[in-house]
Amino acid sequence: MIEAKIKELGYILPEPAKPLAAYIPAIKIDKMIYTAGQLPSVNGQLKYKGKVGYNVSEEEGQKAAELSVLNCLSVIKSVCGDLDQIEQVIKVTVFVNSSDGFTNQPKVANGASELLLKIFGNAGKHVRSAVGVNELPIDAALEIEMVVKLK
Amino acid sequence: MIEAKIKELGYILPEPAKPLAAYIPAIKIDKMIYTAGQLPSVNGQLKYKGKVGYNVSEEEGQKAAELSVLNCLSVIKSVCGDLDQIEQVIKVTVFVNSSDGFTNQPKVANGASELLLKIFGNAGKHVRSAVGVNELPIDAALEIEMVVKLK
Amino acid sequence: MIEAKIKELGYILPEPAKPLAAYIPAIKIDKMIYTAGQLPSVNGQLKYKGKVGYNVSEEEGQKAAELSVLNCLSVIKSVCGDLDQIEQVIKVTVFVNSSDGFTNQPKVANGASELLLKIFGNAGKHVRSAVGVNELPIDAALEIEMVVKLK
Repeated sequence: MIEAKIKELGYILPEPAKPLAAYIPAIKIDKMIYTAGQLPSVNGQLKYKGKVGYNVSEEEGQKAAELSVLNCLSVIKSVCGDLDQIEQVIKVTVFVNSSDGFTNQPKVANGASELLLKIFGNAGKHVRSAVGVNELPIDAALEIEMVVKLK
Repeated sequence: MIEAKIKELGYILPEPAKPLAAYIPAIKIDKMIYTAGQLPSVNGQLKYKGKVGYNVSEEEGQKAAELSVLNCLSVIKSVCGDLDQIEQVIKVTVFVNSSDGFTNQPKVANGASELLLKIFGNAGKHVRSAVGVNELPIDAALEIEMVVKLK
Repeated sequence: MIEAKIKELGYILPEPAKPLAAYIPAIKIDKMIYTAGQLPSVNGQLKYKGKVGYNVSEEEGQKAAELSVLNCLSVIKSVCGDLDQIEQVIKVTVFVNSSDGFTNQPKVANGASELLLKIFGNAGKHVRSAVGVNELPIDAALEIEMVVKLK
């Protein structure tokens, strides 16, 4: 049902991204799943590269946030088998690759938060921290990690 | 009792800050409460703006950390009803808006940690990460998130 | 057994680092231990100082990551008594003090992740976020925090 909703909203759940390094993309501990930081990539190809406020616009940043969230959901699915198992999205942390003087991280991060609300309704209501950073892996425009609770 | 202690220490618990965007300020999962990142604001007005080490002093940074912690407590109260329900403060993460060359994030973050110890005693003893970042939402001097366990 | 493995790999578990400030180095909540952010220090002496990509090489960054992970394990041991109590390493967060233009945080963070795999095998498989930041406490080359679950 959740995957149908994602399609209905016009989005595609990417294949789970392979970690860039020696770690795993998601882990289940009791009823919680924690994801590794997810970049805005599709099939291992980075789609949004650079600094928001410089060579990435706010609108592109929002699209990047949507894509990173979809990657989070994809790696969560790879662990729990079915996104309908998610009882509640708990926490989203958004690291925005920010040019000097760019302070609209919340607007960028809304790309992530609003998509989760559209997909999950009340179960998508989460706490969030959005911060700027000066550099990210492979010059990604942002990196997002998520914690969810299963039913 | 905890709220009386906050008053006795000369502090005021602000109204819970409205999120800047599409998320919720705090969430309760089993016995844990996670907060969203809290800025040093009162009634939606940012009180400490700019970079520590440039146009915000270390002392102002400490005051900003106190204010962000009070905002964390305020949103925690909005979820659990009563700060006396807190059994233990677990974790505090402090993102300090840092000018180039400013490396005294721990001193700034002590504004948060010391206030928690004064308010909660042993129940206020927490782990902490304090890091510098180059930009934060609406140019806030810092952003703090907290995790607590309820009785 | 885990401590023997650390020695066998040629590493030394440092004394638990004293926090730079008013917080505790690790906390146990139910079966989870959360660490404070750990710097690449030995006996209170910072061993890797500066920005990766400028005055700290990637290889030095990896060594710094190994040292911070050993400090995480040391403070975890100070709380649970014995590293054999660890059932699973859950999450590692790596904040890399990054010069402008340095985007190879994953390679640096691999110093941490690969050491955990060598020490713990499957129990060392964790999720990870690695991000760049413009400044860190006392100009440390990186800061690492960890979450583990006990048996």
